[in-house]
Amino acid sequence: MIAILRRYLPVLDWGSRYNRKALSNDLIAAVIVTIMLVPQSLAYALLAGLPPQAGIYASIVPILLYSVFGTSRALAVGPVAVVSLLTASAVGQVADQGTAGYAVAALTLAFLSGSFLLLLGVLRLGFLANFLSHPVIAGFITASGLLIATSQLKHIFGVEANGHNLVEMVGSLVAHLGQINTITLVIGVIATGFLFWVRKGLKPRLLKSGLSPLMSDVLTKAGPVAAVVVTTLAVWGFGLADRGVSIVGEVPQSLPPFTMPGFAPDLIRQLAMPAILISIIGFVESISVAQTLAAKKRQRIDPNQELIGLGAANIGAAFSGGYPVTGGFARSVVNFDAGAETPAAGAFTAVGLAIAALLLTPLLYFLPKATLAATIVVAVLSLVDFSILKKTWGFAKSDFVAVAATILLTLGFGVEIGVASGVAISVLLHLYNTSSPHVAEVGRVPGTQHFRNIHRHRVEIDPALLTLRVDESLYFVNARFLEDLVQDRVTADCPIRNVVLMFSAVNEIDFSALESLEAINKRLTDMDVGLHLSEVKGPVMDRLKNAHRIHEMNGNIYLSQFDAWQELAANPSKAQEES
Amino acid sequence: MIAILRRYLPVLDWGSRYNRKALSNDLIAAVIVTIMLVPQSLAYALLAGLPPQAGIYASIVPILLYSVFGTSRALAVGPVAVVSLLTASAVGQVADQGTAGYAVAALTLAFLSGSFLLLLGVLRLGFLANFLSHPVIAGFITASGLLIATSQLKHIFGVEANGHNLVEMVGSLVAHLGQINTITLVIGVIATGFLFWVRKGLKPRLLKSGLSPLMSDVLTKAGPVAAVVVTTLAVWGFGLADRGVSIVGEVPQSLPPFTMPGFAPDLIRQLAMPAILISIIGFVESISVAQTLAAKKRQRIDPNQELIGLGAANIGAAFSGGYPVTGGFARSVVNFDAGAETPAAGAFTAVGLAIAALLLTPLLYFLPKATLAATIVVAVLSLVDFSILKKTWGFAKSDFVAVAATILLTLGFGVEIGVASGVAISVLLHLYNTSSPHVAEVGRVPGTQHFRNIHRHRVEIDPALLTLRVDESLYFVNARFLEDLVQDRVTADCPIRNVVLMFSAVNEIDFSALESLEAINKRLTDMDVGLHLSEVKGPVMDRLKNAHRIHEMNGNIYLSQFDAWQELAANPSKAQEES
Repeated sequence: MIAILRRYLPVLDWGSRYNRKALSNDLIAAVIVTIMLVPQSLAYALLAGLPPQAGIYASIVPILLYSVFGTSRALAVGPVAVVSLLTASAVGQVADQGTAGYAVAALTLAFLSGSFLLLLGVLRLGFLANFLSHPVIAGFITASGLLIATSQLKHIFGVEANGHNLVEMVGSLVAHLGQINTITLVIGVIATGFLFWVRKGLKPRLLKSGLSPLMSDVLTKAGPVAAVVVTTLAVWGFGLADRGVSIVGEVPQSLPPFTMPGFAPDLIRQLAMPAILISIIGFVESISVAQTLAAKKRQRIDPNQELIGLGAANIGAAFSGGYPVTGGFARSVVNFDAGAETPAAGAFTAVGLAIAALLLTPLLYFLPKATLAATIVVAVLSLVDFSILKKTWGFAKSDFVAVAATILLTLGFGVEIGVASGVAISVLLHLYNTSSPHVAEVGRVPGTQHFRNIHRHRVEIDPALLTLRVDESLYFVNARFLEDLVQDRVTADCPIRNVVLMFSAVNEIDFSALESLEAINKRLTDMDVGLHLSEVKGPVMDRLKNAHRIHEMNGNIYLSQFDAWQELAANPSKAQEES
Repeated sequence: MIAILRRYLPVLDWGSRYNRKALSNDLIAAVIVTIMLVPQSLAYALLAGLPPQAGIYASIVPILLYSVFGTSRALAVGPVAVVSLLTASAVGQVADQGTAGYAVAALTLAFLSGSFLLLLGVLRLGFLANFLSHPVIAGFITASGLLIATSQLKHIFGVEANGHNLVEMVGSLVAHLGQINTITLVIGVIATGFLFWVRKGLKPRLLKSGLSPLMSDVLTKAGPVAAVVVTTLAVWGFGLADRGVSIVGEVPQSLPPFTMPGFAPDLIRQLAMPAILISIIGFVESISVAQTLAAKKRQRIDPNQELIGLGAANIGAAFSGGYPVTGGFARSVVNFDAGAETPAAGAFTAVGLAIAALLLTPLLYFLPKATLAATIVVAVLSLVDFSILKKTWGFAKSDFVAVAATILLTLGFGVEIGVASGVAISVLLHLYNTSSPHVAEVGRVPGTQHFRNIHRHRVEIDPALLTLRVDESLYFVNARFLEDLVQDRVTADCPIRNVVLMFSAVNEIDFSALESLEAINKRLTDMDVGLHLSEVKGPVMDRLKNAHRIHEMNGNIYLSQFDAWQELAANPSKAQEES
């Protein structure tokens, strides 16, 4: 009982050993992370199409719940860029921005996503996340970064525009260029330029001036806060809101409210697929960050318990005015670098954000949306990395195809179609790659018990004996390939009296492959040729024995290829020339 | 040029060596097959929902075209049971039986299917058929056999009934039981009983009475002809058509007419998916039969040229009043057993059927539909074989799940959903099975250079050295599994200073796996643990070198595991006890 509680409630483990030193480290980390999170949360809410406070609410209750159920010591849970974009895309299909239905749909999305994550965790199905291959993730993140940055240009230009893919967005922007608000554009461009400089220019300068890496990092991460303060003061001081600069406006001064997601069957049906997609993408991002940070301190992450932690966080978001959340990269790294020792740091961050939500929100009235858009643009452009195309091109063409297709389809048809096609393409490419396995014809290295590819080595062969080494597990996609190959070789080469299949690299065999072996056996029997196996691995042998058909083979199973050679090679020829 | 012609026109090859002996053998085979095909063609047309002559037309031009383009010497192309059912299911969704639109849709389906097969053949994509695993095919054939037999009961009962799945069909039959026509039922039951007896009881008796196997077989196959003749005479003689027995009626006395498939975009869009499905299922049935028969005479089948042959046959069917065709099992075996030597036997069969279409059709006026239904029921019940459930259960649970799901989904939701889900399920099960590969922790067999699983053998280990033998190719679905495994082992076991991954069974590695290796390397570096590889295969080594990242590893790559052991095992412990 206690063991089960400890497994599902990791807080019992670290909580019982909590001490004063951990407390002071966690408090310092919480202060730093809170400063960074206030503008980021507002910005991501804007990206998701929600009122700014939703971003702050989404960082409070979810963080608290994750600190109870999660296994990572440093992961910071809350809104992140890609999930915010996915939320905007999914919710935009069922309701219009600014309506009550939109907010309810976002809550419902968080609820569905949380339920799905919980379900995966309880059923221990975390491996499903592996269907997203690295090339698909890299292509998707790069394309999403571009889409997100483009989607924010309207705030920087001060125009109305929209669209679900790159072409629509750019077209809509160009169509509205005549309505640009010059003051908004100036604020947006200056803020963007400043934030880029903070990121690229300030940190090296601070480090050179002798500041500690941690302090340099904190100051750099505080850049958005500076931009928020300065541009808000400017808008307030010069009365720019009256001159067409779009501002955040009234933000309620409140702790996270109790909210209810929608349970209408229609709404749930429409949001189910996007919720699954958001869950899996969010989980992959979160688990990668968590494992990278845990490894630095030789700590363990339990992927299935992480699903439960993230599931609880999202359900929390659904009932407290938020929207889908996950473990974010930037905020978690800051948390870790700032010295967070336990999930309590997250709980303290939640308290800090709650105080901000209660006290600071009136100060945000004159905050221009262009500044928030600038923080998003600068943050997501660091995600855009086309070098993955070059890396995969040099490595394997099928990985390149998966990346390129994911990027193009995401940009061209939006995030959901992009990532779904990416998964389908990488699965199909994998199946294609294994559909014609490498099969080497082998002969004996003279004077040894070793057998090598006759096309690569100088080996002895016997014209009446064909030995094929199969370098892949046999299953339905490649079973017929072997059938065809054996039939082709034997019909083309009349002296062959015996065929040996060398199974040293066959790790598994399924029912289709078993039936293919039987078909090969039957056909070779019809041609009066013997079929033998050699070097069959334990698990494969067990399966063949289970099938009770092993005795129907017209030949033998040899422990080693050398045994087969000694018995079957009556007239070995001289060693072949190297080719 | 000649070579290309010979490749695409196999007739040039066998035609140039045709002689008197082959001619006489082919003629005999053609006579036997023609006798068998007349009732079978009528029956399958009935199953497809088409007028009876469509079945005969579908056996004439397609056979001629296949004999020019196909590579099998004995394959007999024409309507088959499963494809006829698929045709009824697909065409029934766009038009009502008996309308002109229904016949045009069947022609269009044949045209689309033929075009798709041709395309696959020209692009040499025959391997796509391998996505249908043996368990899925077996489950699908069994379930289809049941569906087909059930669909024919209405003709035997003499009632109106329909439905796309087993529940609907049985429900519809039961609802109409009150309208049973007793005379029809008597004819149907007697015909069915007679045909079962011919199949199970007559052949052994003929063999025992000293008849040659060929003659016994011919007489058995002529059973349906006898049933047709006797029941037709009975209906005519006793005037049963006036007493409610449903008859075939007027069949035009004509050679195959020239017909045009429909090219309306809407029709093509609706029939495209069913056409692809029919193509692939037809191709799989055909190629299995062709290869089995070819092997008996050590002949070669070219799967991609077979696609072209079947494609031409289906396009021929589209323009000559037929419907989708493929190489049938029963007719091909009869053709082969009757001594057919070349595809010319098929051409002679086509001539025989053309004569039948011209001369015999008036005699079919009083043929009761119940007799045709009986021939279908008896033919397809031999396809029903639930033993596949038991066989796969004993072999591997994932194969069993694929069979069971395909059977249930086909019976419950119809043929198209059944087979599509079967393919999806077998792909997912395969990915699941490879998602957690077998990884063995190995130690050294004392005094040797061999390394074995520490849980199965008495081996030496060094507590500071962890050696894992990975028994599967690494790709995106299982890459993270290895990451987690290494991290778990190293964080759980503090003395570990070096990790060796033994890659002797890793046949391939993709970009995701490469990045996982990098992640493992980075995490182990953070924990101050060395990462090494051993026994890396050539192709995998090439890829690692291409990626230019092999030098970023904190450890070495050893040619053999023994080299790694010698360098890294500082304090090998004594041999472990056998566990």
